[in-house]
Amino acid sequence: SVNPDLASERQTASFSVEKLTAWLDGGAEHTRLRRAVVKAIECDPVFSRENQYFQSQNERYEAAVRKAVHLQKKMHEMGWSENGPEFKYIYRAVSGDIAFLLHRIFMRSISVLGSDKQIAKWIPLASQYRVIGSYAQTELGHGTYLQGLETTAVFDIATQEFILNTPKISAMKWWPGDMGRSATHTVAFAQLYVHGKCYGVHPFIVQIRSLQDHSLCPGVTAGDIGPKMNYEHIDNGYLMLQNVRIPRENMLNKFCEVQPDGTYVRRGSQKINYFTMTTVRISLISDEVVIPLMKACTIAIRYSVVRRQSKLKPGEQEAKILDYQTQQEKLLPQLAAAYAFHFINSFLQELFDRGYREIQRKNFDMLPELHALSSGFKAMVTQYSTSGVEICLRACGGHGYSSLSGLPSLYTKILASCIYEGENTILFLQTARFLIKSFMAASTGQPVPPSVTYLAAVKPGKCPAKNELDFLRPDIYTEAYQHTAVRLISSTAAKLQDLIQSGVKKHNAWNQCTVQLVQAAKAHCHYISVKNFAETVEKLETKAGIQKIMKHLCDLFALHGIFSNAGVFLYDGYISGAQMDMVTAAYLDLLAIIRKDAVPLVDAFDFTDKSLNSALGSYDGQVYQRLYEWAQKSPTNKQMSPAYEKYLKPLLHNTLSKL
Amino acid sequence: SVNPDLASERQTASFSVEKLTAWLDGGAEHTRLRRAVVKAIECDPVFSRENQYFQSQNERYEAAVRKAVHLQKKMHEMGWSENGPEFKYIYRAVSGDIAFLLHRIFMRSISVLGSDKQIAKWIPLASQYRVIGSYAQTELGHGTYLQGLETTAVFDIATQEFILNTPKISAMKWWPGDMGRSATHTVAFAQLYVHGKCYGVHPFIVQIRSLQDHSLCPGVTAGDIGPKMNYEHIDNGYLMLQNVRIPRENMLNKFCEVQPDGTYVRRGSQKINYFTMTTVRISLISDEVVIPLMKACTIAIRYSVVRRQSKLKPGEQEAKILDYQTQQEKLLPQLAAAYAFHFINSFLQELFDRGYREIQRKNFDMLPELHALSSGFKAMVTQYSTSGVEICLRACGGHGYSSLSGLPSLYTKILASCIYEGENTILFLQTARFLIKSFMAASTGQPVPPSVTYLAAVKPGKCPAKNELDFLRPDIYTEAYQHTAVRLISSTAAKLQDLIQSGVKKHNAWNQCTVQLVQAAKAHCHYISVKNFAETVEKLETKAGIQKIMKHLCDLFALHGIFSNAGVFLYDGYISGAQMDMVTAAYLDLLAIIRKDAVPLVDAFDFTDKSLNSALGSYDGQVYQRLYEWAQKSPTNKQMSPAYEKYLKPLLHNTLSKL
Repeated sequence: SVNPDLASERQTASFSVEKLTAWLDGGAEHTRLRRAVVKAIECDPVFSRENQYFQSQNERYEAAVRKAVHLQKKMHEMGWSENGPEFKYIYRAVSGDIAFLLHRIFMRSISVLGSDKQIAKWIPLASQYRVIGSYAQTELGHGTYLQGLETTAVFDIATQEFILNTPKISAMKWWPGDMGRSATHTVAFAQLYVHGKCYGVHPFIVQIRSLQDHSLCPGVTAGDIGPKMNYEHIDNGYLMLQNVRIPRENMLNKFCEVQPDGTYVRRGSQKINYFTMTTVRISLISDEVVIPLMKACTIAIRYSVVRRQSKLKPGEQEAKILDYQTQQEKLLPQLAAAYAFHFINSFLQELFDRGYREIQRKNFDMLPELHALSSGFKAMVTQYSTSGVEICLRACGGHGYSSLSGLPSLYTKILASCIYEGENTILFLQTARFLIKSFMAASTGQPVPPSVTYLAAVKPGKCPAKNELDFLRPDIYTEAYQHTAVRLISSTAAKLQDLIQSGVKKHNAWNQCTVQLVQAAKAHCHYISVKNFAETVEKLETKAGIQKIMKHLCDLFALHGIFSNAGVFLYDGYISGAQMDMVTAAYLDLLAIIRKDAVPLVDAFDFTDKSLNSALGSYDGQVYQRLYEWAQKSPTNKQMSPAYEKYLKPLLHNTLSKL
Repeated sequence: SVNPDLASERQTASFSVEKLTAWLDGGAEHTRLRRAVVKAIECDPVFSRENQYFQSQNERYEAAVRKAVHLQKKMHEMGWSENGPEFKYIYRAVSGDIAFLLHRIFMRSISVLGSDKQIAKWIPLASQYRVIGSYAQTELGHGTYLQGLETTAVFDIATQEFILNTPKISAMKWWPGDMGRSATHTVAFAQLYVHGKCYGVHPFIVQIRSLQDHSLCPGVTAGDIGPKMNYEHIDNGYLMLQNVRIPRENMLNKFCEVQPDGTYVRRGSQKINYFTMTTVRISLISDEVVIPLMKACTIAIRYSVVRRQSKLKPGEQEAKILDYQTQQEKLLPQLAAAYAFHFINSFLQELFDRGYREIQRKNFDMLPELHALSSGFKAMVTQYSTSGVEICLRACGGHGYSSLSGLPSLYTKILASCIYEGENTILFLQTARFLIKSFMAASTGQPVPPSVTYLAAVKPGKCPAKNELDFLRPDIYTEAYQHTAVRLISSTAAKLQDLIQSGVKKHNAWNQCTVQLVQAAKAHCHYISVKNFAETVEKLETKAGIQKIMKHLCDLFALHGIFSNAGVFLYDGYISGAQMDMVTAAYLDLLAIIRKDAVPLVDAFDFTDKSLNSALGSYDGQVYQRLYEWAQKSPTNKQMSPAYEKYLKPLLHNTLSKL
């Protein structure tokens, strides 16, 4: 039975939830396929996450391995393939809570960096799990700066082997998933030395554990790096190598090779590799960031119409907390952002598919732009969404703080996305470098990539909005974002040039501008997100009910951004104080409008109760009952604690040795 | 041996760390006492937190009980008393990781709400731990709105007993600490009914577990609420009561009593109780919020001078990450805030001591102001500091994400402070209500409390700063904060009145202003924090070295606030765009100045390695060595996982039933 406070929210939806779901999925066919996959996974007790919040790190790891092994069987049974359309739905259904994700990266790196011969040897072994792989790049002392890696691989002509070493503690590999306890092999990155000369970082396949009994190979020290904020199911590991010898053939050599006599040969273009790195940043946006944000919104919004607290009107029943303006202001912008980022993800996917086709035709022109977009959006979407999940958690008060709400684990997991695959500040600065270059080019009339042509059209001026309604016009607010992005980029470019002209060294000048460069990169990404949302809504013209509510969300996303970053819009008077009042009024009015459809809007994400795994977010909204039932299953409830006999009883019975 | 990259930071301190420490402690005497207490605790292996990050919830609970019991003995040995000057240092030394904290609240509530007879009966029992108490107020369905509590206590004249009941699931007590597994008694809040008439919420002492064998008493259902984001060491519990009878004498009856014939008598003033609530909000600021923020700053800043990554200047050694402007911009404002909040805490403590003396003279005039200040500052300081700890965590990248950095547990714990003892949004709105009232009074010439007299002096105008240096003048920036606070309060008051005059019902009008009311309350607290910091620096005149660096921190705290909330300062042109450029320049310059003293500034907080419990933050800065040593102690490293025999071996040996 559905909680009546939740049921009533669904009766007044202004649009068809099922149609919106199908549209978000990219068509009803996809929805059907997704539901079939999710059902098959969720019916299988091996994949249950029911006890997840009660398990230790060891138990989580064991369950993840069990699931990964079982999944192989399941996929075979169901006729699903790794590269088939089902895989993303499988990943969604298991919520990423599975082992051997790095084994996949191990295989991908061999496929991309290995010769045909290497691929022919290793990929079948890995596909059949005759070896389990990992990917060992990051070291204790080295993360973002790859050139600084300290692991060495010295070529020994006499034996035709590479000798791998961890010369000091900071060179120890640290963090690689699947490596702490599972992997038999890894792709390790090391500085290649031949005849005493360093050729920079290269990838090597290294066996680390026996295929017979899983013991560590001679010279190998490896283990688990211990507890983390989340990812308890992953055996992130460390690895030290002492004179570990591997055959010459184990250096991945599609692009460079050490020949038997020690000659170093470089061949072909490595550019495709950088492209691989950028696609990983894009692919994580949906699975690791947007879906968790959507889940957090679902949980917090359903809870907020079931939770009643305090009275809005004296004498009446206590009010649903979503009826308080402050609660709307916390949650609804996050909901709008979840939609915005779903759409930006589609935009990026299309762009990258196009980029991939070009690159296959050996046309690398799009690379700088794709790199800038993947860096900037990875950083922007992870940062915004992490903060969004935290807001959802806090908005649920004490119950949000309970692990049983599902929100703490969503938060502690999504937080990592701000760090992995490129730390966000570093990524924003990469985008900024591209923007500054493009701005310089544009201002001297040179051609620039499509996403930055707007930089050429520097128009000082004022926002033409005359009233609150004008701020619901996408052209008005998109233009405001564009203006702001141009201003921040151009003013930082000017500061940079001034510093250099005044004699500051280039690298110091750059460092002195980085706070503002990050701001500029954010403004650029924010502008493109707003523009893309508005264009997505425009294209929806045939679906009137959906278009209307999407338009509201787009307006909210845009106006929330102006309201919360008022300074950059007011700074040069592009938006006046009086206009900011209009923005505020329009923004607050939108909250009340969207509030009415808040539950249908999260229902459309179509998460099952099992995938939410939340006592607050279930479809039926029976929050208190579920919290109580769940608490009773906790191991802290299963027995009288030994603390009673050992400490409490002597204390209470005053039989402790006299105080 | 101290890491040379850290040692070099200490050689160039512009001030005496020891003198700053003594000043922060309130005198060298206090420093000596604190160090003696900390040493006594840390030398005792029972209080060790060494394995904390590896323990399960059950283990954490057991350890906390063990420590609490042992502490009784220790205090007796050392001659420390609960009310002595040592207690705050004990709490700091154990980092709050101890049981029976709610037992203390149990005792306090009896002392405050109980009659002399009740105090004479219960306090000795509780002091000797012949009973263990808890405090059961919050229910599954009721947190902030106390009047909505659903537990009932019906007076039965025939037996002279109260009959307590949990009429429905939402009425179940939920969250009380020490209740899930430890407590024998609790103070339960329930709606009092006599002769069918409800007299509102009252406190009752209820026994919940047997003093003989700790089994639950008849009619009592209780247990642990399960896993949470942190506080694993606390047995937060649930409690259901079914016709549980307690004697009439168990209603705490200092202020109201049910006489044997059922007559309800109210006596004396309850105002002192509200004052108790507000003092709790103040007392948590130091222990639960400022100290954790200081710890996070210490960890992140020490790490940032030891961690080298990437090159600032081509051809040079990799740079300390604290030399990057973006890293400074993350960490140094948090450091400035830690100092600002330490000073605001002193300010509030003094104010409350004064308030307490007045109240004892039956002068309750200060109550509304004290309530507003305690609410607003609890909310502001917890919110700001929680965000500060998160920034510190993220600023340490992957190593910050490891539990071994200590940052994840600092973050997940401090986050709760935004929720408990009054959810922050609710608290800001209480402050806002006081501000609106005071503004109305001030604008009609009535007297207002000291902290809001500035509301009477509404001066439209412009900021007089002419150059960057002017923005290092406390009068200039304090005035800017004051102007902004007045503007936000007055404009929201005007909106509220407009709405009401246009026919909107009062409660609806209030709700429609709440987003802006929260902004106004924040601005008020921010203004007072800046003003208080500036005044604290001014009073330091005899300590020149310290005054200089404190002045820099004060400037940074103030300018960071303007830089990050530029919109509210630019909105009405009080600060112009050109002036905002000066603010930005002054702000960024300050980062580079304070960076030089960053390590001495965190050293002055004087945390021991044991109290930081962080692989990144130790005094010697041997980060990588410690991470590695610590990881090896993890239970995930202690044995071959059973997952190998069960899943990995059959997979690798291809002996799984055929796929």
